[in-house]
Amino acid sequence: MAQLMENEVFMAFATYAAIVTLKMMLMGPITSYFRITRGSFSNEEDVARKSDEEKKKLLKSHPDVERAQRCHRNDLENIVPFFFIGLLYALTGPELSTALLHFRTFTACRLFHTIAYIGALPQPSRGLSYLVGVLVTTSMAYRVLSTVLLL
Amino acid sequence: MAQLMENEVFMAFATYAAIVTLKMMLMGPITSYFRITRGSFSNEEDVARKSDEEKKKLLKSHPDVERAQRCHRNDLENIVPFFFIGLLYALTGPELSTALLHFRTFTACRLFHTIAYIGALPQPSRGLSYLVGVLVTTSMAYRVLSTVLLL
Amino acid sequence: MAQLMENEVFMAFATYAAIVTLKMMLMGPITSYFRITRGSFSNEEDVARKSDEEKKKLLKSHPDVERAQRCHRNDLENIVPFFFIGLLYALTGPELSTALLHFRTFTACRLFHTIAYIGALPQPSRGLSYLVGVLVTTSMAYRVLSTVLLL
Repeated sequence: MAQLMENEVFMAFATYAAIVTLKMMLMGPITSYFRITRGSFSNEEDVARKSDEEKKKLLKSHPDVERAQRCHRNDLENIVPFFFIGLLYALTGPELSTALLHFRTFTACRLFHTIAYIGALPQPSRGLSYLVGVLVTTSMAYRVLSTVLLL
Repeated sequence: MAQLMENEVFMAFATYAAIVTLKMMLMGPITSYFRITRGSFSNEEDVARKSDEEKKKLLKSHPDVERAQRCHRNDLENIVPFFFIGLLYALTGPELSTALLHFRTFTACRLFHTIAYIGALPQPSRGLSYLVGVLVTTSMAYRVLSTVLLL
Repeated sequence: MAQLMENEVFMAFATYAAIVTLKMMLMGPITSYFRITRGSFSNEEDVARKSDEEKKKLLKSHPDVERAQRCHRNDLENIVPFFFIGLLYALTGPELSTALLHFRTFTACRLFHTIAYIGALPQPSRGLSYLVGVLVTTSMAYRVLSTVLLL
């Protein structure tokens, strides 16, 4: 079993997969930060200690909270496919250098995507980082399907 | 390591998992298509070049965009469990024919689910394709738990 | 290939991963239950047989449906990283007792999180169960990165 973790391509996958997954998890605290600083909550029980008047104010959406949530959702929509396809791709035994190129490009794209989204950088910065990430995952999917196709 | 990819059940899993993951990723471009053709955006920076009056119009939700997003979300809620359970299921060494039946049924259900959702086909078409997909994943989970249970 | 499923840590991972994934899937029927009992739907075709007046009433959001959806979304945001990191963690060959402590704590946290969310229990019950789950996943990610780091 330990064999998988002695394979360099799989070790590289595990490294970058852990990094992008941790980055995705970071969106939770980032959203909480905006909820608290902007005073924007979704659940009655989260503002239970406040007066009725304050509650009404706090139980409203805020653009910054919604932006962090869209960023989080976009991570789910893109990092999940990267993990699925990347795991299968690593098992097809690609060259280490080719695999690293895929993993590094994707990771760089998603780190930049978050900066572009939260910082509301001018387009096409966010759009391009999304697109290149999708192309990396598609390229790995092509190798998976052309290697193991069994329908 | 390459052993996994020489196992026919695992190859079949990799094939169908890649197909449904690519299908899920396709919801991104489909949503973008509706955003552009219907003129419905979420981020100020996405409409930066427009006049103030146009911006106000474009930064509104549109039923077709929301429908595509619900479809994407439903994919995440169902294809993610299929991948998780299916991966573990493939490792329990089921019969190839039984495994193929599970993978093919699930894939057919999710392809049809997207058509039913985006095309707003009359119910119970969408509901049934959702339900059968859930039953397939539950059936695989039953085999996983009855084979490897270690609490 | 069957070797993975003869490893006790991997069997334990498969068990707890299947349990939390099934729990996450259960949010689908729970949301449907609230949709039907509260009369709150999102799609025109879901209320096709009703009169126009009834349709208008039924195509509205309801706090209980939205609460179930937030709970489901929080599951996706947390159980997905647990599966990704936990799978890699199980492959690094940790002690069975340490691994079980991680898997059991996470599973208990997420079961309690759902009860706290759907039951609207007073805070910090929900917040704490979320936080401890995140700490478990982070602890596993630390072991993954310190064992296999290949950048």
